[in-house]
Amino acid sequence: MKKSFLVIALAFAGFSFNAAAASEEPISPIRPATNINLGMVELGKKLYFDPRLSKSGFISCNSCHNLSMGGTDNIPTSIGERWQQGPINSPTVLNSSLNTAQFWDGRAADLKAQAGGPIENPMEMGFSHTLAVSLLQTIPGYVREFRQVFGKDRIDIEQVTAAIAEFEKTLVTPNSRFDQWLLGKKDALTKAELEGYTLFKESGCVACHYGEALGGDSFQKMGLIEPYKTSNPAEGRSAVTGKDVDRFNFKVPTLRNVELTYPYFHDGAANTLTEAVDIMGRLQLGAKYTPEENAKIVAFLKTLTGDQPMILMPILPPSSDSTPRPNPFGK
Amino acid sequence: MKKSFLVIALAFAGFSFNAAAASEEPISPIRPATNINLGMVELGKKLYFDPRLSKSGFISCNSCHNLSMGGTDNIPTSIGERWQQGPINSPTVLNSSLNTAQFWDGRAADLKAQAGGPIENPMEMGFSHTLAVSLLQTIPGYVREFRQVFGKDRIDIEQVTAAIAEFEKTLVTPNSRFDQWLLGKKDALTKAELEGYTLFKESGCVACHYGEALGGDSFQKMGLIEPYKTSNPAEGRSAVTGKDVDRFNFKVPTLRNVELTYPYFHDGAANTLTEAVDIMGRLQLGAKYTPEENAKIVAFLKTLTGDQPMILMPILPPSSDSTPRPNPFGK
Repeated sequence: MKKSFLVIALAFAGFSFNAAAASEEPISPIRPATNINLGMVELGKKLYFDPRLSKSGFISCNSCHNLSMGGTDNIPTSIGERWQQGPINSPTVLNSSLNTAQFWDGRAADLKAQAGGPIENPMEMGFSHTLAVSLLQTIPGYVREFRQVFGKDRIDIEQVTAAIAEFEKTLVTPNSRFDQWLLGKKDALTKAELEGYTLFKESGCVACHYGEALGGDSFQKMGLIEPYKTSNPAEGRSAVTGKDVDRFNFKVPTLRNVELTYPYFHDGAANTLTEAVDIMGRLQLGAKYTPEENAKIVAFLKTLTGDQPMILMPILPPSSDSTPRPNPFGK
Repeated sequence: MKKSFLVIALAFAGFSFNAAAASEEPISPIRPATNINLGMVELGKKLYFDPRLSKSGFISCNSCHNLSMGGTDNIPTSIGERWQQGPINSPTVLNSSLNTAQFWDGRAADLKAQAGGPIENPMEMGFSHTLAVSLLQTIPGYVREFRQVFGKDRIDIEQVTAAIAEFEKTLVTPNSRFDQWLLGKKDALTKAELEGYTLFKESGCVACHYGEALGGDSFQKMGLIEPYKTSNPAEGRSAVTGKDVDRFNFKVPTLRNVELTYPYFHDGAANTLTEAVDIMGRLQLGAKYTPEENAKIVAFLKTLTGDQPMILMPILPPSSDSTPRPNPFGK
């Protein structure tokens, strides 16, 4: 009895020590997803990978938020129906459940509100909610699975977006080397990486890139000290609030898995982390990092790559004879 | 000792019985892949899913041979770079290792020869072998993995296509209900499905759709009894042999997983199995199936859906600072 008590006491002591160490930092470890509805996740995964939610039958959520590539497409701005050039860089879907709002301008309150956007955006999937739902309703495998998950007779767009959002909630990336360090594994980072983290904090990056996701928590002006030059017409947060003061305010992107989510910024104009760190330093902080400082910050940023979600590709339920066929080339 | 012998003897007797039953049929069960190099498979899987092998950085092998959708894109003819309309229906990659040759006209002798085609086809991935290899050479994760698998200092296109082909060899689909029946599970098929199989054999479908893959083993004229009307300009086998007698000869497609691989024919003009069976009967066999006969053949065909490959999505090694960036919209 005494021995057991001792073990428990030590375990608590250890936990307290680690928790204290982590809580001193402005960044906290990614937590695995909780409160997950697995039936919704499996259904949402199918929908996430299903190109039948686009007019052409060619573009799925995964086309631009590719889970083999850090939840992005690694293209400056995305390719939509008929190869239309998208207006803005596809943000990563990884850890997007941690964002205070969705899209660069925060126009969607949450993942569920976001999921409906691309389906009916003529520049993206070019379909409509009505067409998407009526298509799903002709696929017996989906009809059964929606009924099982939602217990209703008919599919509706609320169910579709709720299922996709539930799947996306699972796409968190714990266990990065930086998180291991936060949780007490003090040899998880090299000296250069730790120096990069110190620079990251002391030079002010952490003022916006803080918390569990190192970003996603606020809107900030792109080009605070010096103006940001871009041909991209996106206006940022003012497009939502209508307030001129919000012009060029964008949601601070997460830095989790940033090694995988190139190119950077809302216009995808920075190809490398070196370039992004240099521009951020000058334009947001008035800091001109030396090449050595820049390299240390980049080394730190590369420790933020966590365990990527292990995705078993879904097998999509086949269309029935009455399912409308996709229309990739017609009018 | 005697008891062991008896058990072994019975096991052999059982095996002989099943083998005999199966061998009486013109179709044999799909066998799981053998003689597989797992290192090559894992590398080939990454390449299969990597859109950096296309000029745009958007199109991968999986875009048109989607493993969530029966190894096809379920579009009449595929979408290539800049949304170009492809010339022909994407054949399924599933069980393609069983084909006597690759592509509808058999112009590639095997999977390895096929894999290089789309990468450099300006209508498909729009890249070149030289550019693809030099791009891969800038990605440290690939450089290490190619070295591990092939033991050579530099990546070349032979390694790339060999790895993709090795992955594709694993994409077989055993254990369909029909194969279970062939292997002795006599209640695996319903009465209607069995009657469909009998019709399939007796009306002559099996003359071309035989063997392990129910097709893929010969070239046959599309429109044997009645001409096939299509606006698709593909000439078939004559494009390879130069012989007029081969005009409109196409490789007989496999019927494995045919429920998933709609639309049908080289031009993707038949949307449903009902339509495809009707057209095949009339044009190839001079047979006019009644609706009941057609439905039974379709019911049989749907028993050919096997276990779909369980694919854990690969995590692609990230580009380095020196990796050429994709060019989806520029010249």
